[in-house]
Amino acid sequence: MSEGRADPIVTDALIIGAGPVGLFQVFELGLQDIRAHVVDALPHPGGQCTELYADKPIYDIPALPVATGRELVERLLQQIAPFAPQLHLGQEVASLQKLAGDDGRTVFAVETTKGLRFHARTVFIAAGVGAFVPRRLKLDGIEAFEDSQLFYRAPSDEAFAGRHLVIVGGEDAAVDAAIRCAEPGLNKAASVTLVHRRDTFAAPAAQLARLQLLRDSGALRVVAGQPTAIEHDGGVLKALQVDTPDDGTQSLPLDALLVCWGLSPKLGPIAKWGVALERRQVIVDTKKFETSEPGIYAVGDVNTYTGKRKLILCGFHEATLAAFGAAARLRPDDSHQTLYTTSSPKLRKLLGVAPPDDAASSGTTGG
Amino acid sequence: MSEGRADPIVTDALIIGAGPVGLFQVFELGLQDIRAHVVDALPHPGGQCTELYADKPIYDIPALPVATGRELVERLLQQIAPFAPQLHLGQEVASLQKLAGDDGRTVFAVETTKGLRFHARTVFIAAGVGAFVPRRLKLDGIEAFEDSQLFYRAPSDEAFAGRHLVIVGGEDAAVDAAIRCAEPGLNKAASVTLVHRRDTFAAPAAQLARLQLLRDSGALRVVAGQPTAIEHDGGVLKALQVDTPDDGTQSLPLDALLVCWGLSPKLGPIAKWGVALERRQVIVDTKKFETSEPGIYAVGDVNTYTGKRKLILCGFHEATLAAFGAAARLRPDDSHQTLYTTSSPKLRKLLGVAPPDDAASSGTTGG
Repeated sequence: MSEGRADPIVTDALIIGAGPVGLFQVFELGLQDIRAHVVDALPHPGGQCTELYADKPIYDIPALPVATGRELVERLLQQIAPFAPQLHLGQEVASLQKLAGDDGRTVFAVETTKGLRFHARTVFIAAGVGAFVPRRLKLDGIEAFEDSQLFYRAPSDEAFAGRHLVIVGGEDAAVDAAIRCAEPGLNKAASVTLVHRRDTFAAPAAQLARLQLLRDSGALRVVAGQPTAIEHDGGVLKALQVDTPDDGTQSLPLDALLVCWGLSPKLGPIAKWGVALERRQVIVDTKKFETSEPGIYAVGDVNTYTGKRKLILCGFHEATLAAFGAAARLRPDDSHQTLYTTSSPKLRKLLGVAPPDDAASSGTTGG
Repeated sequence: MSEGRADPIVTDALIIGAGPVGLFQVFELGLQDIRAHVVDALPHPGGQCTELYADKPIYDIPALPVATGRELVERLLQQIAPFAPQLHLGQEVASLQKLAGDDGRTVFAVETTKGLRFHARTVFIAAGVGAFVPRRLKLDGIEAFEDSQLFYRAPSDEAFAGRHLVIVGGEDAAVDAAIRCAEPGLNKAASVTLVHRRDTFAAPAAQLARLQLLRDSGALRVVAGQPTAIEHDGGVLKALQVDTPDDGTQSLPLDALLVCWGLSPKLGPIAKWGVALERRQVIVDTKKFETSEPGIYAVGDVNTYTGKRKLILCGFHEATLAAFGAAARLRPDDSHQTLYTTSSPKLRKLLGVAPPDDAASSGTTGG
């Protein structure tokens, strides 16, 4: 360990991914009396459910005839609340290393892109199709300006106040940001230029109407074109060059550049963790959903096995058997029989709810 | 085929068991555009959820923080409604035979205890711990009176009106029946005698209070004792003999005998269907949850495989992969890729709901 760094967080279980399956993993570990930390690249829990279909109906979650992605995540958060998971959001896992722990048992040393470190006895990869990270604008020399003048998400409401802002993108996020920064108020930018490959935007009708009003009033302008280069001078980003449909080039002066090209999943460093992969999926068994590395489990869309279907409800099953697997690893001397929340005083205590009614639970089939 | 019998019901899929997993099997088959018939021994859908824990909370159904058994079943019935399953209740599967169909493909000939016959291309055993059948009173010669003077469930509200009724049992069902038949009204029995091994009953406090009032008023009497024999004469059941705790014997005259000893699961004839078993569980693979007999699948508590946990949520996963397996068997030339209810017009049409919003479904991660 290097000097001057905070001690790592020691935990029985670390879950990578706060999508629906990662969240339900918290629940199943909780029923095994194992508390978990969860890391996710997004700034909020829910993964794809929140990011890609927050408002779209899902029909195939058992016993939920219909729920939006957002509702599904809210329900799961409510369900896992008794187990008080510690969520570490907005950061990806950067590295994972196997160590021999103090007692000779394996420990996984994990570090995130924000420098958070864990020593975990078991790791659950619930990373879906990978960490959702912003699709980046790939232009020579642009990386140097990230987080100073180049942003993929507005760092705050007032971040662009009084600045000359160029926004790149054609969907909700770009349209919303353009409206927010062009409308009168304390957060108003000095100028707003919205760049998209064509003058057509995908957003709710009400937002499109507001956008049009702002264009008509001259509060923002739209440029149809593709970004091709940046102009900078003395370490300061000065302008974005755009190829326009009429084969021209336009230079758009700016103080700040906001790129809203959505998110793209990145499997990232998982490939370097030493777990066996097949076509970029993590290979698991169907007994414990354990990877080739004992103590590391993989659940949900990230894994593969014979018969695998990438469905949320399958991930729920996988998380359940993985929790039993982890319990057997962490407490090899326990019995690990299947207990039921309808009848087990132990599970009910873990859930923080009233114990089962004795009269009702005894001899229900007998006379 | 014997003369004079109705033609068998021809179906792509027959599900044995209408518990939560059997019901969800309907849903997953529906998403594969396969319609199903369902047979269950109980007179209502839900299996154990309805029979054993209708009012007890279940906490481990994913995204349902808490639901009673009844609520879970209601939600599943609502979810499968678009696929209009045909439920055949109150009957067990008596026999299953493999036939070669007209086109050389395998057909399973199934007959129920009520004489209903099916020719099914695929069969799903979702029988849980077996068919729930009433625990029977085993006394010499008693079977002859079943459904004439001996009952395990009241055939109708007025069945015992004006008759001398003996009820055997010590829980809710026995207490409820005793109250119903002893209270004033059109359905009142001539006399009601409630027999239980001891003078203690397990029922809600309100019911116990009503029972006590009826005892105090002389409208019913309680006899503590164990049934040991019946008395009959000329094909008519006359009395039940009971051994009492004081080592005496009492003869209880009767017109009708209602035994409420609850239900007991019976695996029944499944053992004779030629599918491989291990400790009375049906062995399945984890790819399609298919048994040793191709075309017969087993899902939920009835099956076994490495890692098996008898949990409802695991059964949901099993039913899903079994449905994919059946689809591949019934339509070998199709692609059988995984479709999503959030984005697939085909699935949305099968569900009878609006197609996905094109604008929202296209390029959600793109610019």
